[in-house]
Amino acid sequence: MQKPILPKGTRDFNSSELYKRNYIIDVIKDNFSRFGFNPIETPSFERSDTLLGKYGDEGERLIFKILKSGNYLKNTNSKEISDNNISFLTRKIVDKALRYDLTVPFARYVVQNQNNITIPYKRYQIQNVWRADRPQKGRFREFLQCDADVIGSNSLMQEIDFICLFDKVFADLNLEGCRIKINSRKLLIGISEIFNCQDKFSSLINQLDKLDKIERSEVKNNLLKLGFESNVVDSIFEIIDLSNDFITNKKKLKEIFKSSKFASEGFAEIEYIFSYILKNSLNNSKLIFDLGLARGIDYYTGVIFEVLPPEKISLGSIAGGGRYDNLTEIFGLKNMSGIGISFGLDRLFLVLEELDLLPDFSNNSTQIIFLNFGKDFSFDLISLTNSLRENNINCEFFPEPLSVKKQLSYANKNQIPYAVFYGEEERENKYLTLKDMKSGKQENLTLEKLIEKLRK
Amino acid sequence: MQKPILPKGTRDFNSSELYKRNYIIDVIKDNFSRFGFNPIETPSFERSDTLLGKYGDEGERLIFKILKSGNYLKNTNSKEISDNNISFLTRKIVDKALRYDLTVPFARYVVQNQNNITIPYKRYQIQNVWRADRPQKGRFREFLQCDADVIGSNSLMQEIDFICLFDKVFADLNLEGCRIKINSRKLLIGISEIFNCQDKFSSLINQLDKLDKIERSEVKNNLLKLGFESNVVDSIFEIIDLSNDFITNKKKLKEIFKSSKFASEGFAEIEYIFSYILKNSLNNSKLIFDLGLARGIDYYTGVIFEVLPPEKISLGSIAGGGRYDNLTEIFGLKNMSGIGISFGLDRLFLVLEELDLLPDFSNNSTQIIFLNFGKDFSFDLISLTNSLRENNINCEFFPEPLSVKKQLSYANKNQIPYAVFYGEEERENKYLTLKDMKSGKQENLTLEKLIEKLRK
Repeated sequence: MQKPILPKGTRDFNSSELYKRNYIIDVIKDNFSRFGFNPIETPSFERSDTLLGKYGDEGERLIFKILKSGNYLKNTNSKEISDNNISFLTRKIVDKALRYDLTVPFARYVVQNQNNITIPYKRYQIQNVWRADRPQKGRFREFLQCDADVIGSNSLMQEIDFICLFDKVFADLNLEGCRIKINSRKLLIGISEIFNCQDKFSSLINQLDKLDKIERSEVKNNLLKLGFESNVVDSIFEIIDLSNDFITNKKKLKEIFKSSKFASEGFAEIEYIFSYILKNSLNNSKLIFDLGLARGIDYYTGVIFEVLPPEKISLGSIAGGGRYDNLTEIFGLKNMSGIGISFGLDRLFLVLEELDLLPDFSNNSTQIIFLNFGKDFSFDLISLTNSLRENNINCEFFPEPLSVKKQLSYANKNQIPYAVFYGEEERENKYLTLKDMKSGKQENLTLEKLIEKLRK
Repeated sequence: MQKPILPKGTRDFNSSELYKRNYIIDVIKDNFSRFGFNPIETPSFERSDTLLGKYGDEGERLIFKILKSGNYLKNTNSKEISDNNISFLTRKIVDKALRYDLTVPFARYVVQNQNNITIPYKRYQIQNVWRADRPQKGRFREFLQCDADVIGSNSLMQEIDFICLFDKVFADLNLEGCRIKINSRKLLIGISEIFNCQDKFSSLINQLDKLDKIERSEVKNNLLKLGFESNVVDSIFEIIDLSNDFITNKKKLKEIFKSSKFASEGFAEIEYIFSYILKNSLNNSKLIFDLGLARGIDYYTGVIFEVLPPEKISLGSIAGGGRYDNLTEIFGLKNMSGIGISFGLDRLFLVLEELDLLPDFSNNSTQIIFLNFGKDFSFDLISLTNSLRENNINCEFFPEPLSVKKQLSYANKNQIPYAVFYGEEERENKYLTLKDMKSGKQENLTLEKLIEKLRK
């Protein structure tokens, strides 16, 4: 006998969880359509060539690798194996890997289908990704990402459109007070120019990316250890603090950034985006400029987004995204600026659950159950349920003539709102006895009246 | 630069394919709900213990295995590796495997959650499965299965209910003339008793299972080679032929089967099922008794199903299923008879496509595009599209002020039915110029009138 256990970091979803998850997914999906995105899907695994070398050393470690089928040691000699060079051996015995995000497969898709798509190309993709991360609250090894991207347009109108999309999704979920943070990679490059630390740009990004996980003082210490000068670190954090109140400090910031071409360009973008949002306010989210926002992913080149839940919820980001100028280039298609966003379903679920914003789907399925009073009625029960189903009513029969108590207990446990008694008396008098499981009230009805009642 | 290529046997789905696939999935899903099933989902991969040893040698070979994370050679010594005993080494370096079907994970789920589910337990599950099969028409290495199962009821009403479910799904898909074949594993056991070849039962099953792939004469030859006597083989095929016309040959068959307890029981089940279908005819499928139907899967113990497309289509089965009495036992839960069915989405898609029964979803997404006449209009375009979206109209703006010709060409290629011109004149006179992309007709409208028109 085997113990029924799940792999680490994975989950089963029962019906009640799925109805809630699907409610969120449907809101996101509907809004992707509203904003003109069409769906695509890519395979769960890609050739390992496609994925490896795209996510940095840390990402590479977290990718799930699939063993070649058949004799995977065929082209390997025993020396190679005993050398115990894991990464060398892995490339010999593995030829596929599970999707790590939706963006790299999307870039592969765009290049592979470049003759069949129209630029600018807008797609959404709602699929699982897998990462061998250490599981923790809201973080799993299999999780659903909901992505929308536009490829082939440099227009800043896209940046604004995505902010509106974030806002509309949260509005439809009745989620108030989400904080949409924006920054630009250009500003971060600019800062490294202004403070003459371009050589330490990726260290700066890495450290800033930790600001929502560890204390600011710790990040400062790390930067000092990495060779940043003390007054530079202080100045950077001064600018970060200024950035959080964009409206008040606009002039000051512009002055600071004017010495760098990159920074001026990045700042003009932020200014443009804010000028729209000031004229056309968001539904119920807040737009916040945050120069401390860095995003860990290498491929971003322009505006970046990260969305935090309402302040009362202490949980990491629920969505993110940004502009990437050269992602399709690795597969051979140049000059295709792209921008995209991603909702993380699990975090969003936790936030909505904590705020009690998930609708009750407890009786989402069976509306009515026909109780079973013996073999004589079996065929009638099947045909009665089929009549209801023809009228789009979800129903079932109880398959065994157990005691009425047991059958009603099944109905209660499954939160089925109505039960039908159909025995000798009912058959003789050509009616059905309907019991409202909540009120306990019973009434006699013809099949036609029953259908009429339930279709409402 | 890397070539953008897909792994063997996998596919990307573009929007037009996805809209059609989702149409079929929705019909199946809606009917699962109509019949009282609730959804669950299990992880894409299971612990390898859970899957290995469940599908026979052939199945085992086809399971995709996932390498342990980190140093997977840690607990392996070089001798074990150089011995080149693949299956031994595999169990050392692999700890997870991709789902091979939905039934074994479901059995694991039922046992693991036995305290939270109500018996009989009805669930549906629509998820991908993966098999390292040789790809061919309608067969892929990643494919979607749509399963419904009931656990914990012996009632034959379930068998009939599943036949009605098949029929209802095909009716809703406007698919006429599907052939729902039934048989019972009990009859096949009975036949092996009657002809005294119980020892060769699994050979018999294996050979009969090939009847829809190779010639009958070949199957007969195989059986002779496997040691079946010539007159036994002839008799078995005589009975198979009799079975296909159940109504005419009912008495004859009953006489043949009466000497075996198993066979009599199996035959009584078939008789019971037919007696319902004779009284309450199916919508547009045919029920066919076929004693030659065997089903390759080990765990079936009672009635088995296999559905063939209408006769004019030459393609294998589009759905199947059957009763299994002991599946949860491997995980430690005894006496839980189950019965389930499965639709294969890819085959169903091919059948519906060949019969031209898939609706046209070509303009399923964006209904209207706002053309771009320069930076001066950018903010207006964003806010106009947002007004439409608030009214549930799918729309987008063109992000760059390219030539009108290029912008209209984008609209045409994406099959967007309406385009809006919003330039100097329109802004001044407070209206929008709407172009019907099909007829070419243009009209001037206020935003309110436009919303009214498109909401219809």
